[in-house]
Amino acid sequence: MSGDLIRVSEIFGPTIQGEGVLIGQPTVFVRTGGCDYRCSWCDSLHAVESAYRDTWTAMSVPDIWAEVERLSGKSPLMVSLSGGNPAIQPLGPLIEHGKRRGYRFALETQGSLARDWFSSLDVLVLSPKPPSSGMEYDRQTLVDCTARAGEGPRVVLKFVVFDEADYAFARSVSAGFPQLSVYLQPGNHTPPPPDAEDFPIDVEGIMGRMHWLIDRVMADRWFAATVLPQLHVLLWGNRRGV
Amino acid sequence: MSGDLIRVSEIFGPTIQGEGVLIGQPTVFVRTGGCDYRCSWCDSLHAVESAYRDTWTAMSVPDIWAEVERLSGKSPLMVSLSGGNPAIQPLGPLIEHGKRRGYRFALETQGSLARDWFSSLDVLVLSPKPPSSGMEYDRQTLVDCTARAGEGPRVVLKFVVFDEADYAFARSVSAGFPQLSVYLQPGNHTPPPPDAEDFPIDVEGIMGRMHWLIDRVMADRWFAATVLPQLHVLLWGNRRGV
Repeated sequence: MSGDLIRVSEIFGPTIQGEGVLIGQPTVFVRTGGCDYRCSWCDSLHAVESAYRDTWTAMSVPDIWAEVERLSGKSPLMVSLSGGNPAIQPLGPLIEHGKRRGYRFALETQGSLARDWFSSLDVLVLSPKPPSSGMEYDRQTLVDCTARAGEGPRVVLKFVVFDEADYAFARSVSAGFPQLSVYLQPGNHTPPPPDAEDFPIDVEGIMGRMHWLIDRVMADRWFAATVLPQLHVLLWGNRRGV
Repeated sequence: MSGDLIRVSEIFGPTIQGEGVLIGQPTVFVRTGGCDYRCSWCDSLHAVESAYRDTWTAMSVPDIWAEVERLSGKSPLMVSLSGGNPAIQPLGPLIEHGKRRGYRFALETQGSLARDWFSSLDVLVLSPKPPSSGMEYDRQTLVDCTARAGEGPRVVLKFVVFDEADYAFARSVSAGFPQLSVYLQPGNHTPPPPDAEDFPIDVEGIMGRMHWLIDRVMADRWFAATVLPQLHVLLWGNRRGV
């Protein structure tokens, strides 16, 4: 096993997964620190901005695992690796360690960095960032991610959608990966500032965007897409650690 | 093909499936009229009580199919057969008809009536009614349903949970079907009267019950269960036809 340390922003749960293909499933979250992106509407800046680097802890696999087992009472469940961009971190040994103990692993990433250990995952969520994020899309790295994943995990696409341009992006990128299931999610336009433990949220605005997104998908008869809100935001607002 | 007519309460969509294993997926709903149960908190009495029988229409398969194709623009998608108890109706020929055209079919039933045509479904949701419904549970008919389904559809369990007794029921019944995935859903204690097109709903109360249910599942480390609210109720309240 590699002795490389993993930069961890927070470990919390078990709670339900709030979004996407695993929505509603009991999950422990390992959120890593550090990101190669700076999305305009990022809702996890405390795990992205280097100004918060001193809140991240360099942890060994046994140390992370001790915390996951404490939280889950050693009962296997889904571990979600998120960030920041968790693909930056050397997560292969952690995944191997947990899988030997019956746990399953999902990872969510923008798809900017392809890793060989993607093939060890159970679920790989590729979430290319749409125009409203201010980031650039690179199709080739997304192709690389699916190639490294191979036949290992279930690979799905997830798109945050704020507006028409984002929606058009989601349609266009999805068309290039017809083998992947697609999840659409209305964006949260009131993300928490990075130093806030809690922050007011515009649930009505999010639900309005959800209505619009459903209407948009149905009008286009894009029946292969699944449309889901961020359930944790509806349940807990912007509160952290739930 | 059988010429038997199907009693239909309403056909609507496409919209997203609001609950359970297919949550978020574009769906056309065919709601049949008539039920062998009278659950105390039924949210679809207009499709259950015989007092509303004159609002149901006896339809042939071609007539139902014309409406499904009109709503979906002939683009195949998931058709959800609900009720009432749709297992009362002769739905086998409708399913065969639609599957030949590329559509998929899900059916949700309490599991009180087992049908040979369950094996033609893509998804069978068995939703045994908990103590708060006032109905009696018969394990044998549920076993019969899974047997008739065979290797055809994906079969899952769904439980509406209002209180501790319902939760204990869900745990106990699930334990007897370890091969089936389990979906838990907080009950709606303000269901619409059958003659209301819309009706005020206590979203805060439902979300409170959702919080309680998540806490309950996590405290028990029942990590095989998925916990989801009724998304359509959060999005549209008790409004009908969405």
